[in-house]
Amino acid sequence: MAQSPAVQTPFDIALSDRAKAGLPSAVRKIFRASQRSGIISFANGAPFLGALPFGRLAEDARRAIADQGSVALQYGSSAGIPQLRRHVVDIMALEGITAHPDQVIVTAGSQQALNMAAHATINPGDVVFAEGPSYAGGMAVFTSHEAEIVHVPSDSEGLIPAELERLIAETRAAGRTPKVLYTIPNFQNPGGVNLSSQRRLEVGHICRNNGMLLFEDNPYGLLGFDGQIMPALQPDFPDITFYFGSFSKMFAPGLRLGWVMAPASIHEHLINIAETAALNPAVFNQLLMSAYLDDPAWKETLDVYRGIYKAKFQALVETLETVMPAGTSWNKPTGGFYLWVKVPDGIDTEELVYEAIERGIVYVPGTAFYTNGTGRSELRLSFCLPSIDEIRKGAAILGELFTEALASSK
Amino acid sequence: MAQSPAVQTPFDIALSDRAKAGLPSAVRKIFRASQRSGIISFANGAPFLGALPFGRLAEDARRAIADQGSVALQYGSSAGIPQLRRHVVDIMALEGITAHPDQVIVTAGSQQALNMAAHATINPGDVVFAEGPSYAGGMAVFTSHEAEIVHVPSDSEGLIPAELERLIAETRAAGRTPKVLYTIPNFQNPGGVNLSSQRRLEVGHICRNNGMLLFEDNPYGLLGFDGQIMPALQPDFPDITFYFGSFSKMFAPGLRLGWVMAPASIHEHLINIAETAALNPAVFNQLLMSAYLDDPAWKETLDVYRGIYKAKFQALVETLETVMPAGTSWNKPTGGFYLWVKVPDGIDTEELVYEAIERGIVYVPGTAFYTNGTGRSELRLSFCLPSIDEIRKGAAILGELFTEALASSK
Repeated sequence: MAQSPAVQTPFDIALSDRAKAGLPSAVRKIFRASQRSGIISFANGAPFLGALPFGRLAEDARRAIADQGSVALQYGSSAGIPQLRRHVVDIMALEGITAHPDQVIVTAGSQQALNMAAHATINPGDVVFAEGPSYAGGMAVFTSHEAEIVHVPSDSEGLIPAELERLIAETRAAGRTPKVLYTIPNFQNPGGVNLSSQRRLEVGHICRNNGMLLFEDNPYGLLGFDGQIMPALQPDFPDITFYFGSFSKMFAPGLRLGWVMAPASIHEHLINIAETAALNPAVFNQLLMSAYLDDPAWKETLDVYRGIYKAKFQALVETLETVMPAGTSWNKPTGGFYLWVKVPDGIDTEELVYEAIERGIVYVPGTAFYTNGTGRSELRLSFCLPSIDEIRKGAAILGELFTEALASSK
Repeated sequence: MAQSPAVQTPFDIALSDRAKAGLPSAVRKIFRASQRSGIISFANGAPFLGALPFGRLAEDARRAIADQGSVALQYGSSAGIPQLRRHVVDIMALEGITAHPDQVIVTAGSQQALNMAAHATINPGDVVFAEGPSYAGGMAVFTSHEAEIVHVPSDSEGLIPAELERLIAETRAAGRTPKVLYTIPNFQNPGGVNLSSQRRLEVGHICRNNGMLLFEDNPYGLLGFDGQIMPALQPDFPDITFYFGSFSKMFAPGLRLGWVMAPASIHEHLINIAETAALNPAVFNQLLMSAYLDDPAWKETLDVYRGIYKAKFQALVETLETVMPAGTSWNKPTGGFYLWVKVPDGIDTEELVYEAIERGIVYVPGTAFYTNGTGRSELRLSFCLPSIDEIRKGAAILGELFTEALASSK
C-alpha cells in the first residue's frame, strides 16, 4: 500500500437527494461568527451556565467513573437508563403529562430525537406545517427528509387555527400529504409567544381530524420568567403526539441529552431507529444528569435562572426602547430565550448582519426562521447568554447600526 | 386542558418507507437477552473495561467541569473540538493516513457517522456491497436509507475482488446503481479476517473505476493481538473514501465518540448533516477523551488490552477444540473481538439461540450478519467481554448444546 502514490482522480460524488437540505449556509455562517471571541452574541440559543453548581457536578462526574466506571463507560440501553427516564416522567408531570418510564426514549439531545421522528414518519414530498417564524434547526431536519415546510401565520396567541385549517385544505387540494404539525407551544423559538390554552385544543383536534401527527417541541417550558408552566398538548392527544423534551435549556447542552415520548404504536419503531442511527445515548452523561436531578435543589437553581433570564430580558428591552429607530417593535415574551423584533422598511436584517459582525455583535436575521424567503424586516435577539452589560452595550450598537441604515435608505 | 379527558381514538400512524428497516427484531431480542444479569454473553461487541485507569479518568472528568464547566457543558462545534481532532489525526497516522484536523468530523460514535454518511449519499434503491457476513448495525443503517445490501463472498483474505466485480456488473445489468462498498478491512466483524494488502488495492480500484464510494469502517484496527497495524485504504483512494474511526473498541463506548473523514468535496455537506441531525458531539466527553489521549500512557494501556484479548481468544479456542462436535470449524483471527464459527448440518444456530439463553449463554446466530437469510450454520462468538473463566464455562455449555442438537437431528 504505502509504495503506491495517492491517485487524485477528479471524482464527482453524487450526493443523495436528501443531502442538499439542512441548515441554510447563511445561517451556518452567522452561527460560526457568533463563536468568535470578543463578539457579543444575540444569535445563540445557548443558556447561561454561570449559575450551575459546577463543584457538585464535577464531584458527580468523578464519582460516576470512580464508583461505576464499567457501567458509565460501557454501551447501554438504546432507550436510555431507567433512572433518567424516571426523572423525565417526573419533569413531564409538571406539565400535566402522565407517563411511564418505558414510554420515554432518551436521546443525544432533542435535535436527534426530532431527526429520528422525522426519519420514522416523513416521506419525500410530505408537508410539515410550522409556525411562521419557526426554529431553523427543526425545519432543517424536516427538509433534510425531503418534506416541504408550510408556515402557519401566528399572532400573539401563537399559530392561528383557522389558518392551519385553510393551509391543510390547500395542501390536500394540491394533491400533497399534510403529515405533521411542528409546534413549539411555549416561549416559542423565535417568536417568544405561547400557544393559548384554547388554541392548543383547537390545533390538536385539527391535526387528529386530518390524520396528522403533532410534534410538540418543548425545550423552554420550564423557563417562564415567573415560574408559570403551561399544560402540554400531549395529554389530550396522546395518540398523535410526539413530545420532545430537552435538558439543554433548563440545565446545559453539553451533555447532549433530550428525550422523546411517541404514540404507543410507534414506540418500538422509534427505538429501532435510535439504535440504528446511534446505538445508545452516553451512559456516563445520563448518570451525571440523573445525579443532578436526584437532588431537589435543581428546582431552586431553575428558579435562579428564571430570575437571571428575566433580568436580561428587561435590560434588553429597556435598552432597545432608547436606541432603536422609531417604527421598531417587538413582542413581550414571558419566558424563554428570545425577543422577536420587527424593523421599519429600509432596514434589511439579512444584509446588515455582516456589518453587525464587523461592529462586534451578531443576531439572527428573520429569514433564517422561514423557508419561504420572508423575514428581512425581522430578527431574533437571544438574551440568554450575554451578560447584562453586554446586552446593553450590544443593543446600543444594534440601535446605532439600524438608525444609520434607516437614515441612508431615505 | 386538564379538564378535558384524554381521547383515545384509534389512529393508524403511517410510518415512512424508511422506518420499517433497521436491525431485525430477532437480533434486537438477542442483544436484549445478552444484557440480563448472570448470563455469559458471547453476543456483545462490548470491550472489557476493567483495565482502564478509572482513577485517572474520574479525576479528568472532575477537572473538565471544575476548571472549564462553562465550556464543557455548553454547545460546541459540529465538527468537534480541535484538540480531539488533532488526536484523531495522530491516531490515523498510525495506519498511514496523512490528514489535517480540519478534515475530521467527530461524531457521537461511529454508528452516527455511518448514518450521516448514508444520509449524504444513499438514494432509495441504491446498492451497497458488504462482506458476507458483515456488521448487522452497519447494514441496518443502509437498509434504513432504503439501500439494498449485496453480499460479496469472502475467504481468509477478505472479500474477493473478482466476486465484487461480477456483482457490480450484475447490479448494473439489472438497472440498479452500485453506490458504496462497505468494508471492515481489519479484524472484520463478524468474520475476524483481514483484507490482504493486494486486495485493498484491487478493491479500491474496482470502486473507483465503477464510480463507487468506499466506506472503510475501522473500529478494530489498533487491536491486533501482537500490535500489528494494517495500512488503511484511505491514502490510496482519498477521493472516494469515507474513513470511519471509533473510540468505542480501543478505549470505551460510554463516551459515544467516533469520527469520519470524508472526501474533500463532501466535507461541508457532511458537517451540515451532522449539525442538522444532532447539532454537535458532547464537548464534555470530547474534553475527557482528549485528556486521556494527552498522556502517552494510553498506548501502554492498549498493549495491555491486546494481551487480554489474545488470552481470551486463546481460552475460547482451546475450549472449543475440546467441546464442539466434529465438523465444527472456525477462523483464526489475529486481533479484534470475534470468532466466526461454522457448525455441521443439523445444527440451526438461529433456532438454538433461545435454548442457549435458557442455559445461561448467548451468542449471535449467523443470520444476523446476512440480509439474504443465510447463516443458520454459522454464529459469532465475541470473546471481548466475558472473563476467561466465563469463556471456558460458556463454551462448554455451547459445546454441550450443539452436541445434543446434532445427536437429536440424526
